[in-house]
Amino acid sequence: MAGAESALEILIQTLARLPGLGPRSARRAALVLVKRREALLRPLVSALEEVAQSVKPCSVCGNLDSRDPCGVCGDPRRDGGLICVVEDVADLWALERAGAHRGVYHVLGGALSALDGVGPEDLAIGRLLARVEAGGVKEIILATNATVDGQTTAHYIVERLKGLSVAVTRLAHGVPVGGELDYLDDGTLAAALRSRRPLD
Amino acid sequence: MAGAESALEILIQTLARLPGLGPRSARRAALVLVKRREALLRPLVSALEEVAQSVKPCSVCGNLDSRDPCGVCGDPRRDGGLICVVEDVADLWALERAGAHRGVYHVLGGALSALDGVGPEDLAIGRLLARVEAGGVKEIILATNATVDGQTTAHYIVERLKGLSVAVTRLAHGVPVGGELDYLDDGTLAAALRSRRPLD
Repeated sequence: MAGAESALEILIQTLARLPGLGPRSARRAALVLVKRREALLRPLVSALEEVAQSVKPCSVCGNLDSRDPCGVCGDPRRDGGLICVVEDVADLWALERAGAHRGVYHVLGGALSALDGVGPEDLAIGRLLARVEAGGVKEIILATNATVDGQTTAHYIVERLKGLSVAVTRLAHGVPVGGELDYLDDGTLAAALRSRRPLD
Repeated sequence: MAGAESALEILIQTLARLPGLGPRSARRAALVLVKRREALLRPLVSALEEVAQSVKPCSVCGNLDSRDPCGVCGDPRRDGGLICVVEDVADLWALERAGAHRGVYHVLGGALSALDGVGPEDLAIGRLLARVEAGGVKEIILATNATVDGQTTAHYIVERLKGLSVAVTRLAHGVPVGGELDYLDDGTLAAALRSRRPLD
C-alpha cells in the first residue's frame, strides 16, 4: 500500500466504482482476489473478457446477451405477440426470474425525466412503435417502475400507441406477496382496495 | 439470461463470490460492467491482470505489494527496530491508513484456532522469531485482534519471545474515539477503567 498508486491501490479504486462495493468492501475484495489468484482472480478475468467480447444489446428488444437476437427473442416457445415494456435490462431479468411472463420484452433504456433531461428520443420508444407497426403484436404490457418517471413514461407510450390496434395493459398495483398492511404506504393500499378481486 | 450458463451468468456467479457482493449486487455490478465497457470493464481487467502479475507477499513481513521488500519494509524512514505484529494484510492496511505506526510490520497470516485447526506452524511465527534473533529489534507491538483467537495468538507469541531481549507491548483496550459508553460492552468499559490515565 505504501506506494500511493500501486497496482493494488488501482484495483481497489476500480472495484470501488462497482455498485454495492464501498471503499472498505473493495479493499476486502481486492485482498481476497490476490490471495485466491487461481481460484478467483483468473476466473474473474476470463469471465470479464468473455462478456466484453460476446455480450451485446439484442437488436430486437435491447436485452443484453451473447446472442443476437437474444435468448428470449430467439426462443420459439415465447409469444412474440405479447411485449412487456421495461425500463432497464435489470427489470427484464427480474421478470425472467419470476418466470411469469411467456411473451417477449422491450427495453426502453430508462424513463422519461425532465429533471435528468431524458426525452422520448433518448429511449427506445420509436423502436417499440416500429415493432407494433410491423404487425403481429396483440398486447403491450407496460412494466415501467411505479415511480413518477416510470408512470410518466407509461402514459407517454399509451398516447403514442393510440390508433394502433394493440391492447395496452400495465402491471397491477397491490399488496406485495408476504407484505404486511401496516407497513404499506397509503397509495398502495388505496390501489389494492380499488383493484380488489372476488375470492375464487 | 435465457441461456443457463451464458457469459453474463458466469460473470455474475464469479462476482458473487467476492466478499461484500451478494447475488443481487453481483447482478447490478455485472450490468454496469457491460454497459460501461470502456470506462469500467476494461480498466478492471487491466487492474486485475496487473495485480496478478506484480503483487506478491513481501519476503520480510508478509505484506502484499508489487515490490519485494514491500514499500513499508523498503522505506528508510521507517524504524526497522519496531515491529507491529498483525494477523492479516487487511489489519496492516488499517494501521497504515491510521498513519500512527512509524515502524515496520509482521503479518502472521491468521490467528491460532483450535476450532479451525490453525496451529503455530501455520502462521509466520517462526519467521518473526528469526527476525528478532537476527538482532536490531527493540520492540514487538502485538496488534492481533481483540478476539479469543487473537489474544491466544498474542499470548503464544509472548511465550515464544521470552528469553529474547526485546520489549513486547500490545495495543491498548479502551473506549473507541467517538464511541458512546452506553453502547460499549462491559469488557471494554472495564478495560478502559483499569487503564485510565491522568489528564495532561
